[in-house]
Amino acid sequence: MSRPSSVKKERQSVLLEKLTQDPFLTDEELAEIFKVSVPTIRLDRLELGIPELRERIKNVAEKNYTKVKSLNSKEIVGELLDISLGVGGMSILETDDSMAFERTKIIRGHYIYSLAESLAIAVIDADVALVGVANIKYKTPVYSGNKLLAKAEVKKVRDNKYIVWVNISHKQVEVFRGKFILVSLEKDFYDSEK
Amino acid sequence: MSRPSSVKKERQSVLLEKLTQDPFLTDEELAEIFKVSVPTIRLDRLELGIPELRERIKNVAEKNYTKVKSLNSKEIVGELLDISLGVGGMSILETDDSMAFERTKIIRGHYIYSLAESLAIAVIDADVALVGVANIKYKTPVYSGNKLLAKAEVKKVRDNKYIVWVNISHKQVEVFRGKFILVSLEKDFYDSEK
Repeated sequence: MSRPSSVKKERQSVLLEKLTQDPFLTDEELAEIFKVSVPTIRLDRLELGIPELRERIKNVAEKNYTKVKSLNSKEIVGELLDISLGVGGMSILETDDSMAFERTKIIRGHYIYSLAESLAIAVIDADVALVGVANIKYKTPVYSGNKLLAKAEVKKVRDNKYIVWVNISHKQVEVFRGKFILVSLEKDFYDSEK
Repeated sequence: MSRPSSVKKERQSVLLEKLTQDPFLTDEELAEIFKVSVPTIRLDRLELGIPELRERIKNVAEKNYTKVKSLNSKEIVGELLDISLGVGGMSILETDDSMAFERTKIIRGHYIYSLAESLAIAVIDADVALVGVANIKYKTPVYSGNKLLAKAEVKKVRDNKYIVWVNISHKQVEVFRGKFILVSLEKDFYDSEK
């Protein structure tokens, strides 16, 4: 049998992993997962130097906006959690009634699309990037209040063309998947078109 | 040589056709097309009972919203020009700076996507329709101020599945093309999910 301190160590390492997979997990949800009390989770977070949910999201989002080249921060739909130009990134969107069909409370497709498209553009290492083609699939309805986590991966780069895969999940269930082909534009191009 | 009255008749019939193809054509543009004066065009419109641009768009849009089953009027991105449930429809969107990337004044993809998705849903003859899959292509950049005309055609219906093609053009040049596969939901489904 393992001693209490090693139990804690293991829990904290799994806790870190869980929060990487799903940054939306609240202390209450974590307590349930680990079958411990909420104060225990708070102590774990404190020892690991992880702020609480809101603070956590705010911190990382601010840090990530400065990295993006192809968009201004206010142009991004959702909040950036992580970004690595030319490689990939993560963003989140808390849905609400304003994004939903009135009758069904199902979130309208184009809000989910916008989250995915924003992230696909944000991860491109170029000043201006536009979507050329997108093949997308909505896998299951998203309801008002659902919290969405989007992950993007740059799969291929050739000349000024980029293939980016984006998947969006709610509570680790995939709700959307999309392949975006983006094109970066030379500064000359958009200056001359104005 | 044809007599003046038959010249006018022919011009008026072509004028009707032109306005069906591109309802955004102004009197000035029509005058240029027909190499006549703007007052001549106004007279033509008067005789044909066609109101001027703004009025024209407002009239048809209002008439069409009441036909749509799957969306509330405020849920539609763009203005509906024409709708025939289960068959097809047309809508328009006047783009502006609020929809554009700040740096380039290029309209962000998701606004164009939203116009197309809204129309694809609006033409479905069902109370609730959701997008399952979309394959879309942005063919050329759209700039702030461009007026977009979207046309949708229901290509196939099987059980609760619909295939809808949407194309969007600016001054009769295609800027976007998309194939949407939609699914209609039974009332039971969305009531039980709430």
